[in-house]
Amino acid sequence: MRKQTSKQAAYALGVDYGTNSCRALLVDVADGTEVASAVFPYPTGEAGIILDPKDPNVARQNPQDYIDGFIHTVATVVRDAAKKVKGFSPEQVVGIGVDTTGSTPLPVNADGIPLAMTPKFRKHPAAQAWLWKDHTGWSEAARITEAAHQAGVPYLAKCGGTYSSEWFWSKIWHCEQTAPEVFDAAYTWVELCDFVPAFVTGNMKPERIARSICAAGHKAMFGTAWGGLPSKAFLKKLSPKLAALRDRLYETTMASDEIAGFLTEDLARAVGLPRGVPVAVGAFDAHHGAVGAGIKPGRLVKIIGTSTCDILVGPERAAIADIPGVCGLVPGSVVPGMIGLEAGQSAVGDIFLWFARNGCPAEYRRASDGASIAALEQAAAGQKPGASGLVALDWNNGNRTVLVDPLLSGLMVGQTLHTTAPELFRALVEATAFGACTIIRRFEEHGVAVREVVTCGGIAEKSPFLMQIYADVCNRPMRISRSAQTCALGAAIFGAVAGGAYRTTAAAQKAMTGVKDIVYKPIAAHVKVYAELYEVYRSLHDAFGKTGLHPDLEGVMKKLIAIRQKARQ
Amino acid sequence: MRKQTSKQAAYALGVDYGTNSCRALLVDVADGTEVASAVFPYPTGEAGIILDPKDPNVARQNPQDYIDGFIHTVATVVRDAAKKVKGFSPEQVVGIGVDTTGSTPLPVNADGIPLAMTPKFRKHPAAQAWLWKDHTGWSEAARITEAAHQAGVPYLAKCGGTYSSEWFWSKIWHCEQTAPEVFDAAYTWVELCDFVPAFVTGNMKPERIARSICAAGHKAMFGTAWGGLPSKAFLKKLSPKLAALRDRLYETTMASDEIAGFLTEDLARAVGLPRGVPVAVGAFDAHHGAVGAGIKPGRLVKIIGTSTCDILVGPERAAIADIPGVCGLVPGSVVPGMIGLEAGQSAVGDIFLWFARNGCPAEYRRASDGASIAALEQAAAGQKPGASGLVALDWNNGNRTVLVDPLLSGLMVGQTLHTTAPELFRALVEATAFGACTIIRRFEEHGVAVREVVTCGGIAEKSPFLMQIYADVCNRPMRISRSAQTCALGAAIFGAVAGGAYRTTAAAQKAMTGVKDIVYKPIAAHVKVYAELYEVYRSLHDAFGKTGLHPDLEGVMKKLIAIRQKARQ
Repeated sequence: MRKQTSKQAAYALGVDYGTNSCRALLVDVADGTEVASAVFPYPTGEAGIILDPKDPNVARQNPQDYIDGFIHTVATVVRDAAKKVKGFSPEQVVGIGVDTTGSTPLPVNADGIPLAMTPKFRKHPAAQAWLWKDHTGWSEAARITEAAHQAGVPYLAKCGGTYSSEWFWSKIWHCEQTAPEVFDAAYTWVELCDFVPAFVTGNMKPERIARSICAAGHKAMFGTAWGGLPSKAFLKKLSPKLAALRDRLYETTMASDEIAGFLTEDLARAVGLPRGVPVAVGAFDAHHGAVGAGIKPGRLVKIIGTSTCDILVGPERAAIADIPGVCGLVPGSVVPGMIGLEAGQSAVGDIFLWFARNGCPAEYRRASDGASIAALEQAAAGQKPGASGLVALDWNNGNRTVLVDPLLSGLMVGQTLHTTAPELFRALVEATAFGACTIIRRFEEHGVAVREVVTCGGIAEKSPFLMQIYADVCNRPMRISRSAQTCALGAAIFGAVAGGAYRTTAAAQKAMTGVKDIVYKPIAAHVKVYAELYEVYRSLHDAFGKTGLHPDLEGVMKKLIAIRQKARQ
Repeated sequence: MRKQTSKQAAYALGVDYGTNSCRALLVDVADGTEVASAVFPYPTGEAGIILDPKDPNVARQNPQDYIDGFIHTVATVVRDAAKKVKGFSPEQVVGIGVDTTGSTPLPVNADGIPLAMTPKFRKHPAAQAWLWKDHTGWSEAARITEAAHQAGVPYLAKCGGTYSSEWFWSKIWHCEQTAPEVFDAAYTWVELCDFVPAFVTGNMKPERIARSICAAGHKAMFGTAWGGLPSKAFLKKLSPKLAALRDRLYETTMASDEIAGFLTEDLARAVGLPRGVPVAVGAFDAHHGAVGAGIKPGRLVKIIGTSTCDILVGPERAAIADIPGVCGLVPGSVVPGMIGLEAGQSAVGDIFLWFARNGCPAEYRRASDGASIAALEQAAAGQKPGASGLVALDWNNGNRTVLVDPLLSGLMVGQTLHTTAPELFRALVEATAFGACTIIRRFEEHGVAVREVVTCGGIAEKSPFLMQIYADVCNRPMRISRSAQTCALGAAIFGAVAGGAYRTTAAAQKAMTGVKDIVYKPIAAHVKVYAELYEVYRSLHDAFGKTGLHPDLEGVMKKLIAIRQKARQ
C-alpha cells in the first residue's frame, strides 16, 4: 500500500483553520501518530473575530492572521519535531493539507492579494474575510432562495432547498449592496480554504487558484449538472454586478486528493521546510475532520466544536435523493469518489461558551471559560433527565439543519424560582443534543442510514457528560475519534496523498485513523425521558421555526412540570 | 377630624408580615410621620421559608418565627421611639394593626395553638404555616374549580372563575390528602392575618378568633350572598372531612376597622407597651399596603415586592361585574365600605432575586443580592427598548392574574451568542411590566378605569430603572407612595382607627398618607417599541397559557430581530 520504497519515515502536515485559531499537526504517514502540533490564536478582534456592537450578525477576520498563523504553527511543529524525533529531517515532510472554516470568502485584487492587505482597505470591515458565522447577508440569502424557486433552477436541490446567509453568494451580494467600494475594488472572491493553498504555493493569480469542490459545491451552488456556478442569467436577476463577477470566478473545481501547488521558497524558508513540498487542494474543516475520523458509508461523523458539522458519505453511484434542509450533497466533497452529505448546527460549543461568560454565577466561575464549563458540567452531571423541567432550543446562532434559517434565536422554557445555573446549562447541552437528533432523524427519514456515530472535536474529548447526554437523546452509541485533532489529521491525510504516500484517500484513512476504546451507550431509562422531552423540543421547533405545522403549545409547561415531578420522585 | 381632645401626641403601630421578614412601624397619627421601625428576618429555612429540594412547589414557615418577630420588632420600635422622641411614652400608642402575606393558613388545635408549636408536630412540614406561594395544592385547586363549575355554585364568581393553589381550601385539602395525621389533629385552620391578632390579644380559642373579611372573601370563597363559606354539601363532594371542618371554621367575618382584641399582659410586658392596647382585625399585606398608599376609586395601587399585588376599590353600590381572572371582588376587604378588587403577579422581585443568585456573572456580583441587582440595573439602564431582541414571560412562579394557573413556568426567547446578562435581566424586568400591563388592560376591558397608578414596596423606591420601564410599558404615569413601608403604614392606619384617633379609614388615610413628588412619565418613543414587544409577549402568553387562542408563533423570532435591528440603528 505504501508507495514509498525506502524504509525511511515519512511525515505529512495538516494545517487546520478554526474559528478562533489555527493549528498545525505533523503526523507519521505510516499510522497517523501525531508527532508535533502548534496552535496560533488569531490576534485580531475578540477571540480572533471582528465584531460590530451594533449588529450581532457581523463576524469578520483579518486575512493577515491566517498567514501569520501558517508561518507560526508550521515553523513550530517543524522545530519541535526536530527536537522530539531522533533523525527527523524536514525533507521527510512529503505533503501539506489545509482545511478551514467556511463559507469564509474574502475579496482579492487581480493579483490575488486580499483587499484587507492593501493600504486603502486595511481597516474596511467589508474587505476582511467574511467568517462562516457572519449572518449579515440574511436578507440576500432569502432573496436568493426566492429567486431560485421563482426561476425554477435546480441550484438549491443539493443544499436543502434554502440558501443560507452563511454562504458565499449571500455574503458577496451583501457586500455589493452595502459596501460597493469594496465590491468594485475586488477582482474576485476566494474561499479561505482556497486562499491558504494559493498563498503558500504562490498560485495567487486568480486564474491559477485551485478551487475546492467542497466549498464550491456546498456553498456556491456549483454543480456539474448545471454547468458549474449559477448561470449569468440567474445572477443578473440578483444583480448585474454579480453576473459580471461570474466571469472572474471559476469554471472548474478540484478534490483534495489533487495538488494545488508547491510550497514557495519564501514560505519554505520561513517555516523551515524544503521548497516544493506539495500542497493539497483545500476543503472545509468538517469535511477533512470527517476524513480524519475515518468516515465511511453508514458512519456519521459529528464534529462538535463552536458549531457542529455532521458528515456522511455515500458511494457516488448511490441514488441519494435530495434531502430537505440538508445543506449539501456534493460528489467528492469529503472523500474523493463518494458523495458527501453535510448537515450541522450553527452553534454548539459557542452556546456553552456564551453561557459560561454571560450566565455563569460566581460560584461556578473559574479562571478560564473551559474550567467554568467543567464546573457547570460537574454540578449538572448528577441531575436526572427531566428533573429540571427545562427545555431549550439550540438556536442562539440560528438553525442550519434542518430549517436553514439564521433569523432564529434561542429559547428557554420551564424556569422556576428554584432553577439553578447548572440546570440551565444542562438544558442547553440537551438542546444541542435534540438538535443533533433532529438531523439524524432527517437523514433516516430520507433513507440514509446512520448506523454508528463517531464524534470528534475538543468537546467530545473533554466531556463524558455531553457524550452520555448525546447517546441518551440520540439513542445510539457514541464513539470518539482516536485523534483529538481530527480536522488537522484529515488535512494531513490529504497531505500524505498529495505527497504520494498513498494512492487513495480510503487507504490513507485506513492506516492513519481510528476510534477510541470508550463507547457511550444509551441508558434505557434516560432514553425514555428524553423521548418525552424531545416531543416538547420538537413542538417548540415546529412552532417557532418555519414548518407550517403550528403545534398547540398550551400543554407544554404542564407537560414539563409533569416530567419534572416524575423525575424527582 | 382628630377625635383626641388632648394636644398630646398619639402614635399607632403597624406590624407587617412579609414573605421573608416582618416589620413594625410606629407612626404619628396626626400626619403619618414615621417615628421608628424595625425588621426581623424569619430565622427558619432559606430566607425564612422551609423548602423541599424534591418539590419546588413547597413553601412553608415556622409559626414561632411570627411570634418572635412580633416581640422583637415591636419591642425595638418602642425602645427606639423613647430614644428618638422627647417625651415619648408607650401610653401614647393608641392601637395596633396587623397585615400578613396570604393565603397563609396554619393548622391549630382546639386551644388555637399552632400544631407546629406542639411537640408531636414540631418538625412536620404539613403542620407549619402554608405560605402564600406554596403551590403543592395545584391539583386540588383544579379539582375545586371543576367541582364549582359542575355544581353551578357562584363561589368562584368573585375570584376570577378559577380557584388557585395559593389559596386556603387547596392547601387544607392537600394536607388532608397527603398528611392526614396533621389534618386530623387540627381542630381548625387560621389565616396568618387572623392568627397574629388572636395570639397577641389572647383570643386564641377558635370561636373567639376574629376572622378577616379580606382573607375569607378573597381566598376562602366566603360570600354573604351564599351564606358565608361554601356549603357543606359542596365541600362534601370534595371530601367529607372538609365538610366536617366547616363547622369548626367560622360564620362571620370582620373588616379591619374593627377591633380583634386587646394586647395581653404578657405580650405588653414583652414589648414594653401598656396592656389593653386595641388590636385591629388583620388583613393581607397588599390590602393594607393599598390603604397606606392612599387608595381611592380610579387609583390603582401596585405593591411591588417578591410578588405584586394590584389593588383597586370601588364604591360598594357600584355594579362592578365579575372580571375573569381577577382574584377577588370583596366588600370591605380593603377600605371598609368599598368593594376591594385584587389582582397580582405571582413573582416579580422574586424573579430578579432568582436571577441575581442564579444568572448573574461574577462581573455584576456584589456583596449582597440587592447590590448585584443594582449593578445589573446600572448596566441595563442604557439599553434601548427592543435592542436586546429578547422577550420573556414572567411566570417563574406561575401566573396569578389573568390566567390563575400555577402550573406555568418561565420562558425567555431571543437569545443570541452576544446576549449579555444585563440584557437578560432587563428582559425579565420588562416581562414583569408586560404582566402588569396585562392586568391593567383586563380591568379596563371590564369597565374599571385605571386613571392613575401609585406604586409602593421596596422595589418601586429603589429602582427608577424599573419605574420608567413600567411607565413606558403601561403607558401611564407612575407615582410612588410617600411611605417606603406602605403595608406597615396601612396597618398603623387601622391601628389608629381601632384606637379611636379617626372615625373612618378614609379620614385616617387622608391625614396619614401621600405620594412623592417624583412622577415617571411615559416616553413616547419607548411606548411605541414596547407596544410592539407587548404583542410578542401577548402571543407567547396566549400560546403557552390556557386561553384557547393558539396564536401562530412562526414569525416571533423574526419580529424580535426586526425590532432589534431598528432599535440599534
